[in-house]
Amino acid sequence: MELKELVGLKAAEYIKDGMTVGLGTGSTAYYFVKEIGRRVNEEGLKITGVTTSIQTKELAESLGIPLKSVDEVTCIDITVDGADEISEDFQGIKGGGGALLFEKIVADNSKKVIWIVDESKMVKHLGAFPLPVEVVCYGSIQLFNKFNKKGYNPEFRKTASGDYYLTDEKNNIIDLHLGEILDPMALAEDLIHLTGVVEHGLFLDCVDTVLVGTKDGVKVIEAKR
Amino acid sequence: MELKELVGLKAAEYIKDGMTVGLGTGSTAYYFVKEIGRRVNEEGLKITGVTTSIQTKELAESLGIPLKSVDEVTCIDITVDGADEISEDFQGIKGGGGALLFEKIVADNSKKVIWIVDESKMVKHLGAFPLPVEVVCYGSIQLFNKFNKKGYNPEFRKTASGDYYLTDEKNNIIDLHLGEILDPMALAEDLIHLTGVVEHGLFLDCVDTVLVGTKDGVKVIEAKR
Repeated sequence: MELKELVGLKAAEYIKDGMTVGLGTGSTAYYFVKEIGRRVNEEGLKITGVTTSIQTKELAESLGIPLKSVDEVTCIDITVDGADEISEDFQGIKGGGGALLFEKIVADNSKKVIWIVDESKMVKHLGAFPLPVEVVCYGSIQLFNKFNKKGYNPEFRKTASGDYYLTDEKNNIIDLHLGEILDPMALAEDLIHLTGVVEHGLFLDCVDTVLVGTKDGVKVIEAKR
Repeated sequence: MELKELVGLKAAEYIKDGMTVGLGTGSTAYYFVKEIGRRVNEEGLKITGVTTSIQTKELAESLGIPLKSVDEVTCIDITVDGADEISEDFQGIKGGGGALLFEKIVADNSKKVIWIVDESKMVKHLGAFPLPVEVVCYGSIQLFNKFNKKGYNPEFRKTASGDYYLTDEKNNIIDLHLGEILDPMALAEDLIHLTGVVEHGLFLDCVDTVLVGTKDGVKVIEAKR
């Protein structure tokens, strides 16, 4: 079994009848959502899903998982999502799949957040993975130039056909190639003060439990935020 | 002549051949844009306009003002825009017309910003005018509830037919009825740290010159930011 599938299945064990569950986006969260779908259909699990992207919404609908919008629930009991990088102090980069805005909104409204990753995502410091920043299209080139001046090594995300990538909210993504982020808090502060930045991929003090898929099985780490 | 027209005409005097000019949105900026259009057509004024809303874009196009996107210019020489409230220390609330996001992006890329208002907009402290906050639709009710808990007296902006108002970027607006904002900096900090807030209507340390229409004529105030 692939490590991503291993942690996806393990995370599903946290989900009990009656829960409202945030359903993450990406190749690891995929296995979690698939398993929740299986349990809904085969075991009669009764949950309400809240999705973090159009992609996950379509997957969840195809599996028959009952869904509500984040605005139709009081709060979310558990959200399970992937991450692109997790540092030693449990800060994360997310948004490689482009769903960072809705993922952060859902996480923000969750009592408990679980990240599921294979061991390749666990790093000392964040930053080898490019940091996605979701920006309003109008003015995005001006913002790109500002990032450039700050030495953030920005790169517009493009589609396979060379067009500017558009998020579910029709914004652009600028990926920052930073190498190493020694002070993610300070970087986040800088980014949110720039007009046109809608959201960034730094998920700070956000996760409760990390499930890491290793060749020796799943490691469960409590993040104590 | 209406006070709004008086300041609109006065502001147009700052505009010279060769300039790139930010064109504001709203009932006062309207007179400025009209006058620029007149000078382009009658006097052969050569400028490039950068608009702050679809509404102003349509107006400027109808007047034959040459336009570029904010991303097609190096920078904007002067932006002239209205304001809903200006405090004694030249902080402002904008966004009554719903264009705050693009207005802030254009202001942010301008060497000089001029606000044009009639004297009714000059106040001691900001806050009698509801503060517009542009928010992502997904999660906007959760955000509304957070504003409510903080005592911000939020109200979703609606259209005449009762639908949720949508900005040019297809976001919602929540107006905060605050009464008096004694520390706009602290409030701005709080708002930008909330996930789902795209932009807010506090324009702080942003204006260079304020033109105030009074019954005795136009008062020119340098804001020294």
